[in-house]
Amino acid sequence: MSKKLWQTKSGLHPLVEAYTTSDISADQMLLPYDVQASSAHASMLCKIGVITKDEEQDLQKAFDQILALYNKGEFVLTPAQEDCHTAIEQYITEHFGQVGKKIHTGRSRNDQVLVMMRLYMKDQVSEIQQKIKQLITVFEDVSKKYQNIAMPGYTHMQRAMPTTVGIFFDSYKQALSDLTLLIPGLLDYIDQNPLGSAAGFGINHLKLDRQETTELLDLARVQSNPLYCAMSRGFFEGTILSVLGQSMILSSRFSVDMMLFTTQEFSFFSLGDEYVTGSSIMPQKKNYDLFEVMRGNSKLFFGYESQIRDIILGLGSGYHRDLGLTKTPFVQAIDLIQSTLDLLLEVVPQLQINKVNLQKSMTKELFVTDEVYKKVAQGEPFRDAYLEVKESFFKE
Amino acid sequence: MSKKLWQTKSGLHPLVEAYTTSDISADQMLLPYDVQASSAHASMLCKIGVITKDEEQDLQKAFDQILALYNKGEFVLTPAQEDCHTAIEQYITEHFGQVGKKIHTGRSRNDQVLVMMRLYMKDQVSEIQQKIKQLITVFEDVSKKYQNIAMPGYTHMQRAMPTTVGIFFDSYKQALSDLTLLIPGLLDYIDQNPLGSAAGFGINHLKLDRQETTELLDLARVQSNPLYCAMSRGFFEGTILSVLGQSMILSSRFSVDMMLFTTQEFSFFSLGDEYVTGSSIMPQKKNYDLFEVMRGNSKLFFGYESQIRDIILGLGSGYHRDLGLTKTPFVQAIDLIQSTLDLLLEVVPQLQINKVNLQKSMTKELFVTDEVYKKVAQGEPFRDAYLEVKESFFKE
Amino acid sequence: MSKKLWQTKSGLHPLVEAYTTSDISADQMLLPYDVQASSAHASMLCKIGVITKDEEQDLQKAFDQILALYNKGEFVLTPAQEDCHTAIEQYITEHFGQVGKKIHTGRSRNDQVLVMMRLYMKDQVSEIQQKIKQLITVFEDVSKKYQNIAMPGYTHMQRAMPTTVGIFFDSYKQALSDLTLLIPGLLDYIDQNPLGSAAGFGINHLKLDRQETTELLDLARVQSNPLYCAMSRGFFEGTILSVLGQSMILSSRFSVDMMLFTTQEFSFFSLGDEYVTGSSIMPQKKNYDLFEVMRGNSKLFFGYESQIRDIILGLGSGYHRDLGLTKTPFVQAIDLIQSTLDLLLEVVPQLQINKVNLQKSMTKELFVTDEVYKKVAQGEPFRDAYLEVKESFFKE
Amino acid sequence: MSKKLWQTKSGLHPLVEAYTTSDISADQMLLPYDVQASSAHASMLCKIGVITKDEEQDLQKAFDQILALYNKGEFVLTPAQEDCHTAIEQYITEHFGQVGKKIHTGRSRNDQVLVMMRLYMKDQVSEIQQKIKQLITVFEDVSKKYQNIAMPGYTHMQRAMPTTVGIFFDSYKQALSDLTLLIPGLLDYIDQNPLGSAAGFGINHLKLDRQETTELLDLARVQSNPLYCAMSRGFFEGTILSVLGQSMILSSRFSVDMMLFTTQEFSFFSLGDEYVTGSSIMPQKKNYDLFEVMRGNSKLFFGYESQIRDIILGLGSGYHRDLGLTKTPFVQAIDLIQSTLDLLLEVVPQLQINKVNLQKSMTKELFVTDEVYKKVAQGEPFRDAYLEVKESFFKE
Repeated sequence: MSKKLWQTKSGLHPLVEAYTTSDISADQMLLPYDVQASSAHASMLCKIGVITKDEEQDLQKAFDQILALYNKGEFVLTPAQEDCHTAIEQYITEHFGQVGKKIHTGRSRNDQVLVMMRLYMKDQVSEIQQKIKQLITVFEDVSKKYQNIAMPGYTHMQRAMPTTVGIFFDSYKQALSDLTLLIPGLLDYIDQNPLGSAAGFGINHLKLDRQETTELLDLARVQSNPLYCAMSRGFFEGTILSVLGQSMILSSRFSVDMMLFTTQEFSFFSLGDEYVTGSSIMPQKKNYDLFEVMRGNSKLFFGYESQIRDIILGLGSGYHRDLGLTKTPFVQAIDLIQSTLDLLLEVVPQLQINKVNLQKSMTKELFVTDEVYKKVAQGEPFRDAYLEVKESFFKE
Repeated sequence: MSKKLWQTKSGLHPLVEAYTTSDISADQMLLPYDVQASSAHASMLCKIGVITKDEEQDLQKAFDQILALYNKGEFVLTPAQEDCHTAIEQYITEHFGQVGKKIHTGRSRNDQVLVMMRLYMKDQVSEIQQKIKQLITVFEDVSKKYQNIAMPGYTHMQRAMPTTVGIFFDSYKQALSDLTLLIPGLLDYIDQNPLGSAAGFGINHLKLDRQETTELLDLARVQSNPLYCAMSRGFFEGTILSVLGQSMILSSRFSVDMMLFTTQEFSFFSLGDEYVTGSSIMPQKKNYDLFEVMRGNSKLFFGYESQIRDIILGLGSGYHRDLGLTKTPFVQAIDLIQSTLDLLLEVVPQLQINKVNLQKSMTKELFVTDEVYKKVAQGEPFRDAYLEVKESFFKE
Repeated sequence: MSKKLWQTKSGLHPLVEAYTTSDISADQMLLPYDVQASSAHASMLCKIGVITKDEEQDLQKAFDQILALYNKGEFVLTPAQEDCHTAIEQYITEHFGQVGKKIHTGRSRNDQVLVMMRLYMKDQVSEIQQKIKQLITVFEDVSKKYQNIAMPGYTHMQRAMPTTVGIFFDSYKQALSDLTLLIPGLLDYIDQNPLGSAAGFGINHLKLDRQETTELLDLARVQSNPLYCAMSRGFFEGTILSVLGQSMILSSRFSVDMMLFTTQEFSFFSLGDEYVTGSSIMPQKKNYDLFEVMRGNSKLFFGYESQIRDIILGLGSGYHRDLGLTKTPFVQAIDLIQSTLDLLLEVVPQLQINKVNLQKSMTKELFVTDEVYKKVAQGEPFRDAYLEVKESFFKE
Repeated sequence: MSKKLWQTKSGLHPLVEAYTTSDISADQMLLPYDVQASSAHASMLCKIGVITKDEEQDLQKAFDQILALYNKGEFVLTPAQEDCHTAIEQYITEHFGQVGKKIHTGRSRNDQVLVMMRLYMKDQVSEIQQKIKQLITVFEDVSKKYQNIAMPGYTHMQRAMPTTVGIFFDSYKQALSDLTLLIPGLLDYIDQNPLGSAAGFGINHLKLDRQETTELLDLARVQSNPLYCAMSRGFFEGTILSVLGQSMILSSRFSVDMMLFTTQEFSFFSLGDEYVTGSSIMPQKKNYDLFEVMRGNSKLFFGYESQIRDIILGLGSGYHRDLGLTKTPFVQAIDLIQSTLDLLLEVVPQLQINKVNLQKSMTKELFVTDEVYKKVAQGEPFRDAYLEVKESFFKE
């Protein structure tokens, strides 16, 4: 059992330990962000005279070593370490002695986690923004490529009026484009530095230079009110998922379309063998698992989102341990967005358009409304034209 | 039974009718937005020559009459009318004859609902934006007023370190301020005109001037792809609630704080008699129902949000009748945001600060961390200082 | 403004009043259950000597009058009355004087609401149980009727292996039958009397005879611990929806099946004109709105369920005002179950089976697995047979 | 890359492979249930003559070896194996040759997963039932131990009327006892054997003896309709969580109570040092992380439940790949119930009751309602007594 940062003598009951220890897989991934923030913290501590120049150099050396090991896959957290923060501090103390006991000066695990997550968020939101822009281009390309291919338009899942494959793909392009309008505000929202807020009350007797770490971390501003920093744990995570989650709704709706349009009965679209899967019992099957998983992943996503939201929703201000439970679902939800966008970027250009079936499906009922509007164009009131055409359609 | 817009001879089975007819209370409230959009539609139909100048004048007269009746509370929907669109068309046909059969030319009930909702959304989001700005000022005022009043800071609901009432209120101010960063993008997102998309496939044989209605309705741009218009039903509603819902999380957390800080045990804050309620059995009770309802309303809110999201999440593109079920929860959710902001604007300035109790609660454990940092300021490594202070604290 | 039961002098601020007053439509429906419980309460108060025989007769007369008016639609709650409890007490005081001030003796609004809801729950769960049993018979009938009609079986929405319309309908029958296994325990669970728990702490100085009201209300047992009674508010509602909600999942899945199998592309099933709806723009449309609404209603249902659960989830024991917010979503959710079952009972027997299309869809890929098993029956290892058949299928 | 059961030549695109491959940690845990079911399947195949006695013995030997390795921690799934089913079949083929190609005869991966999950469910539900019964005893014990210790009763988080620590603990005992009424029906519900339903359509040309495997697996009955078997995937999981989830609501409410009653301001209860945690910055802190995590875990739980429910809610009947996504959240949700019950069983008896603080909190407002009832007992109408006492209370 590794010693906790706050621990002195008596151990924690093993059941309580097991119950309150988080899953470390998220921390394993997040570690470089903690190193980045800790490095900025060390520079600042040196600048304000809390540690010496030599101590700072030792710390930076330690961070470099940790990152080098990490990148080789050799800095692996153990469950006993509880989180990446403990693992880093232990490494420093073990390899560089006393200075390891100083790196936590002027911060709490609360703001340490906050700033690590903030850097992660900023990275992820930017990356997702880029992928959405790429996907817009992908949908634009297929939309242009198939702009003249007729396709039945459906309402209520019944054939309604004619449309085109181009318009169909363009509708997703438009939806994604509009979504990008929300992202700059979101990036602006999260672009602030919580480091220095400590446990939500700042630090007395030390003159932390929060502007310094803000610049070193390339963040836009100090998140000044320390209680607000504490309140933003989980809250910022939730806001990000609320906004970006709209892309999961779109991918889900696209997958529902694809599942329908790839049935034998519709057969409008298909994918090559390397994209489809088989059955362990039925030799003939070609299954579109990828779209089914996409459809299901949107539900997983909103489950994670609700976990985060429901955790913070019932809490007053200040730090609560429950907030720590938001880390894993946030990382899982972000991963779902990323992998879903990656898959769409790969797959949408590969969709094969089955022109023969599309053409066969352009049946006459799709053109009935046109009949109404031909009459309207000749001056007949809409309601009368509608009723006449209706009567004649059902008479046939 | 009133005749449906699409109905000819055989009636609908009463059970199906009952099951598929929506609640009309939302439509009763939304009617003026339909009138506004229908008026723009009529002008455009006249401009492109589908109706005559005289017919347009009749229609505009009808709209004025409807609004006048509505404002007097005399234009009341009946369940048989199903929705406000039918009610309006019936009124016109009844009072102005033939032209009533022409007003639906070039549109479907789909884009008619879409544009009505769009105008409502734009109004509501702007109004909520204004209220949030006012609430920021309110929190700023109380924050300044009480900036020097000490207050225990809590983590894990245990006394942690000293803070002030000013910082406490300011944390909500900051959170709301950051929230406003998301709203311009949201307003930009929804500011587009779906009218003219008809059932999701536009209209052939008529040259609708969509730019004209866009200008008349003071919207920023045409939402050009008609399938995307159909897809935006429910989807835009969900996006709005996702973004603005963050304010419901904040109001919930504030209410949780207030419920705790108004207990007899804490007694930090209180409200005058006109804000609290009593008990039907216990004569002495002063209950903070308003904050309990605020806390509960956040859960109602996210229930409505999930209804909308889950409805659209499972649907492919194009119109589906399920989308009609998003109207009522959207209106209910918007009402919850509005009324919650209204209440906070009224109540926050009325909070009474019980200085005596706050002062009594500033017990010594709150200052233990300061002891650590006094030692750190004198050069001691943080971890050593922490352990020394801890040992001495628990020895006492 | 009507006077609240707990009110003395100063009025409540109108914004607080508006914010904390619940919607009265649920109470309008629930009133007879309150009358029933109040009548039992009055008998018991007489039995233990708190009111006289004459007073009790006045009360029972009042209850009879109220019910008579109610059944004629003439006992209509006003918003100012806040709830049905106030309305009833006001009626008694107005028409029978002093005794009106005694009916609330020995109870609080808390247990008054609890017992009213309990009686409503018991009624509803029993009724739903009956309807599910009827629906089992309905599915059994159509299953037998079509037991020999072949139908393609789908996995991953792709044709998989042969099945029959009979097996398809029977699968819903089986699912519903299993669901009924959960209901006796649920009925047992709720069959207890909270009346007499008052505000969660019972009543001192009065010897309430809780067994007496339990018998009068035909409940199985006294819910003895008064704090548990308070805790059961919302909690019992949630448990009921959790269990019965499984029927909404089944109806949703059935509606998804129906929406697919009624498309022009599948055309396996259809419904007569009185069950389908049209379009305001497309004269030819036959839309299965009823199944779309059914599909959407399952999402509304779980939104209501989550509202109730999330409200109670964050609360400690004892009464909280938020619990009052569970009433409306509970009633709405119950109504959705009832109306969905009613509709299925009507519609399932009306489904028309399109044998020609079903037969046309029995294409050869459905029988490929049979080929494998013919080889297996002749002694070939399964994996080898699978691979041979697969190769030969894709060679064709 | 390991070869999939359905795979022949061309490989799957790596992005699709990554996107559609499930997390194997759940399968690692579930493997013994698959072995159990496969063993029964092998016996049955031998009984009906599909495999020889010798082949069956080889298979049973293989299963024994796998279990032996597993119990030593040496049968570890690799990501390339995709799931435990592939791993088992590969092991057999590798070590026992040809017979490995026969074990999948007469089943599909669908019913293989179904039966594995069914055995797991039955185990878990029974175990949870036992733990709930133990917890009832635990609450009963503390309830009796502290039955005479007075405690303020709260409504609206305000002091209301007197209660006792005994009644407080007993309220949780009662709630848990009632919950057990639902479990026998639930156990009955799941106690059926889906093995033999294959992909939802059974197997032609083989006379599977489903009664035989049912008996071997100690299940109560055959789940006969194969389409219903397919439909029950995820559905049974959801039903179990819906019912047992009520225990997570109770543990959440208990944790909310504990968090409040362990604040310095209330100080009614406390826990010894081995149950509480410290702070990395504040040496004096004693934090009740265990109750905070319990409070948060209830939100994680319902997030998992909603993932499962929302996945199945939108699907028609038959197997869909999305259903596979229900496995991980189900296992995670079950683990949360188990670990939460374990913790409560340990911690509830350890709660220390701070009698001095409890006594100090029994202030006079708690007894005001008693004053009313003293007057009522002397014949005064309740409403009059209430108003008199109220007036005199606020005059003081």
